[in-house]
Amino acid sequence: MTQTPAPLLAPRLASVLGRIDADLDGALARLIDLLSIPSISTDPAYKADCARAADWLVADLRSFGVDAETIATPGHPMVMGHVDGPKDKKTPHLVFYGHYDVQPVDPLNLWASDPFAPAVETTAKGRMIRGRGASDDKGQLMTFVEACRAWVAENGALPCEITFFFEGEEESGSPSLVPFMNEYKERLKGDVALICDTGLFGHDTPAIVTMLRGLMGEEIVIKAADKDLHSGMYGGPSQNPIRVLTRILAGLHDDTGRVTLDGFYDGVPELPADVAAQWQVLGFEHEAFLGEVGLSQPAGEHDRTALEMIWSRPTMEFNGIIGGYTGDGFKTVLPAQASAKVSARLVGTQDPHKIRESLRAYVEAHLPADCTVEFHPHGASPASVMETTHPAFEATRQALSDEWPNEAAFIGCGGSIPIAGYFKKIVGVDALLTGFARDDDAIHSPNEKYDLECFHKGMRSWARILDAVSQG
Amino acid sequence: MTQTPAPLLAPRLASVLGRIDADLDGALARLIDLLSIPSISTDPAYKADCARAADWLVADLRSFGVDAETIATPGHPMVMGHVDGPKDKKTPHLVFYGHYDVQPVDPLNLWASDPFAPAVETTAKGRMIRGRGASDDKGQLMTFVEACRAWVAENGALPCEITFFFEGEEESGSPSLVPFMNEYKERLKGDVALICDTGLFGHDTPAIVTMLRGLMGEEIVIKAADKDLHSGMYGGPSQNPIRVLTRILAGLHDDTGRVTLDGFYDGVPELPADVAAQWQVLGFEHEAFLGEVGLSQPAGEHDRTALEMIWSRPTMEFNGIIGGYTGDGFKTVLPAQASAKVSARLVGTQDPHKIRESLRAYVEAHLPADCTVEFHPHGASPASVMETTHPAFEATRQALSDEWPNEAAFIGCGGSIPIAGYFKKIVGVDALLTGFARDDDAIHSPNEKYDLECFHKGMRSWARILDAVSQG
Repeated sequence: MTQTPAPLLAPRLASVLGRIDADLDGALARLIDLLSIPSISTDPAYKADCARAADWLVADLRSFGVDAETIATPGHPMVMGHVDGPKDKKTPHLVFYGHYDVQPVDPLNLWASDPFAPAVETTAKGRMIRGRGASDDKGQLMTFVEACRAWVAENGALPCEITFFFEGEEESGSPSLVPFMNEYKERLKGDVALICDTGLFGHDTPAIVTMLRGLMGEEIVIKAADKDLHSGMYGGPSQNPIRVLTRILAGLHDDTGRVTLDGFYDGVPELPADVAAQWQVLGFEHEAFLGEVGLSQPAGEHDRTALEMIWSRPTMEFNGIIGGYTGDGFKTVLPAQASAKVSARLVGTQDPHKIRESLRAYVEAHLPADCTVEFHPHGASPASVMETTHPAFEATRQALSDEWPNEAAFIGCGGSIPIAGYFKKIVGVDALLTGFARDDDAIHSPNEKYDLECFHKGMRSWARILDAVSQG
Repeated sequence: MTQTPAPLLAPRLASVLGRIDADLDGALARLIDLLSIPSISTDPAYKADCARAADWLVADLRSFGVDAETIATPGHPMVMGHVDGPKDKKTPHLVFYGHYDVQPVDPLNLWASDPFAPAVETTAKGRMIRGRGASDDKGQLMTFVEACRAWVAENGALPCEITFFFEGEEESGSPSLVPFMNEYKERLKGDVALICDTGLFGHDTPAIVTMLRGLMGEEIVIKAADKDLHSGMYGGPSQNPIRVLTRILAGLHDDTGRVTLDGFYDGVPELPADVAAQWQVLGFEHEAFLGEVGLSQPAGEHDRTALEMIWSRPTMEFNGIIGGYTGDGFKTVLPAQASAKVSARLVGTQDPHKIRESLRAYVEAHLPADCTVEFHPHGASPASVMETTHPAFEATRQALSDEWPNEAAFIGCGGSIPIAGYFKKIVGVDALLTGFARDDDAIHSPNEKYDLECFHKGMRSWARILDAVSQG
């Protein structure tokens, strides 16, 4: 694909871009309002805040003519909205997905400011919106909403049929998502699904993600004695669940960084030569990628590049561990239990359920006498490889290339965005994933931010995409 | 040693025992008052409470004529008290040691009642005093104080010179103890040191502990990236401190339960045949000992008995571990750090400092690229083997045998009571350790208790010991 010169803008697009530029402060104020709601979905203490964020979105969509509502689920509510397309012209039906819930904020002491008192900061790296959810995913979600608002304001109506679909459980394993999509399949059946929860490639290169890793999460709780014991009185002949757990976890990787579970690599393909060649062109440098977070050398599987490990290799990671006395000072206790949260990122056709079974069998096989184990599953989604044949993919690639300094790329993504697979499997619709996050946005970490440039150019990108895909 | 028939009681002892029996409710009320002070020494939030407990003891000692005071240290205050012995008779100078600080109470949700709202409960196993410190060590310490109070009330003065010495940092590694004992060496120089911080052997057999394990505590903090990372974006090529830590900890024991550290077993003696024979007679059953806490089979070193492992073998245990997301739900984070509290119980002439160095060298040798480690030491004391030649040992053994159903035994103890070694090394005084805790007292655990019988017979035991050792 050779780069074409930037086309002359259609008047309907030019006016929308102009309005987006002029109303940046308004868009920022709305985003800050949404960011100030602590919609942490994984923590039951924030249930009412999640509902409040959903209601906020419904009110905002209605403010520019979208027929919007919340729909209750056993967990947090979904937000659905709809506008018809023009009657006189054949245009695609777009279904836009984002999520309004956010990650927990601990460790809170590492935040330089209140995560739910968002603000625009001017730094040496430019202006940025600081706060939990600024990038993942409220800021990204609002780039699309703002583009639509500007479009309606300038052109009286959106250029095509659009269904808005916002979830509130993405950061907590999406327990209600599959049943909901099955029940509301007909309303979600568009021509293409747009998902805005990914990032730029490097600083200035927009990207469409066509490979996503899957995810299998499991909590493992090892128990031994029926109470915490004194390590002087009992240390030696008594089982110590921390010792049992660390030994079990340590056995999950061999000395070359490979996962040892039976069948773990079943369905893991070698990277096709053409994809490897595309990625080669991107000029990814692990020194820069890792250097950004204070690291320098690729860990993990020996003889694999860092980019391969992130985009096309599976992992088994330990996301949390706790047991015994963890406060200040020292307590010579043998704890009654210890637990770990473990997750695998999956690629190819790895089966999350089989991997969960294999993990459980391994743990049980390594459990010494007098120990018991409890398992708590947290999500299971296979990897996805997108089809990119729908014309919206090429139109979007061109629109993104027009807005950003560099041409847009089709790339892989190490994260797991199960919704993409569900759109394909449940609704039969291809998912187009694009977004404007940067690697240093610190999503899921303290001091999350979203560059003002990304927010601004993100809105402008969506305006261009709406224009491009609705040319008919 | 054959058991002699219980001797006729001297009148001065008979009246003291009678008063102890008659004033049990008064003694209980005083203990409950002391137990209600949350003197958790390891947690800086309770600093004022530790001072309050020290002041309480000073006031209580003064109430029956002891010349008592608190003495400030860089940490929590020491309590010192003194009474002269009779001028007309040669009697020994006893130095009594106990500690007024207590362990933390987490996990608080496992307590059936407020740990600092102590109360006497009537249960199927008898009446017991429930609360943090009931057994370790406030209840034990007060058995001696109450015996002295009753002695003074009945006989007008104590039967020999006594120095009271109460510490407030025993549960947090005793940072001020050695400097203090060096400074106040002259005041602590008695004929024998009495330490009441140990237990009965089995249910009804009083014991004098003659072997104590040492302790070396170390906190290990592993750090990698400069912030928590998203396991999707970074999982694979980025170091995960939980993975690094679990692998390091898992390498500390081999498959036979032995510690792998270089030089760890230097100075670990095989049990002398005569001691092994004495222990054999005690009829220790690991099924009963472990069954008490919900376990059944000895873990730890293969081919060692449970009693050997507790009394005469060293251990390396993990007392606490934490890293990443440990709240409800799931968070796919690669944490910036993970840490563990590790402690070794030491025997023979194992050198705690050499073992700390060996542990640190091992951790550093196994640290992958991009990881750093911080070490925080928490205490270092070698094991002790007591000399039992002072006549107070045999007098005490006889006095204990008179009070309890079974004859008193000389035994080992898995716990670490560094003060015993310090009395010998710094002050040059042999330490006699006896106490009345039971194995099911749940010291260091939720729902700690002290049997009313132990408190009552403990006071009576000390009255008998005071009588026996001051016969002159």
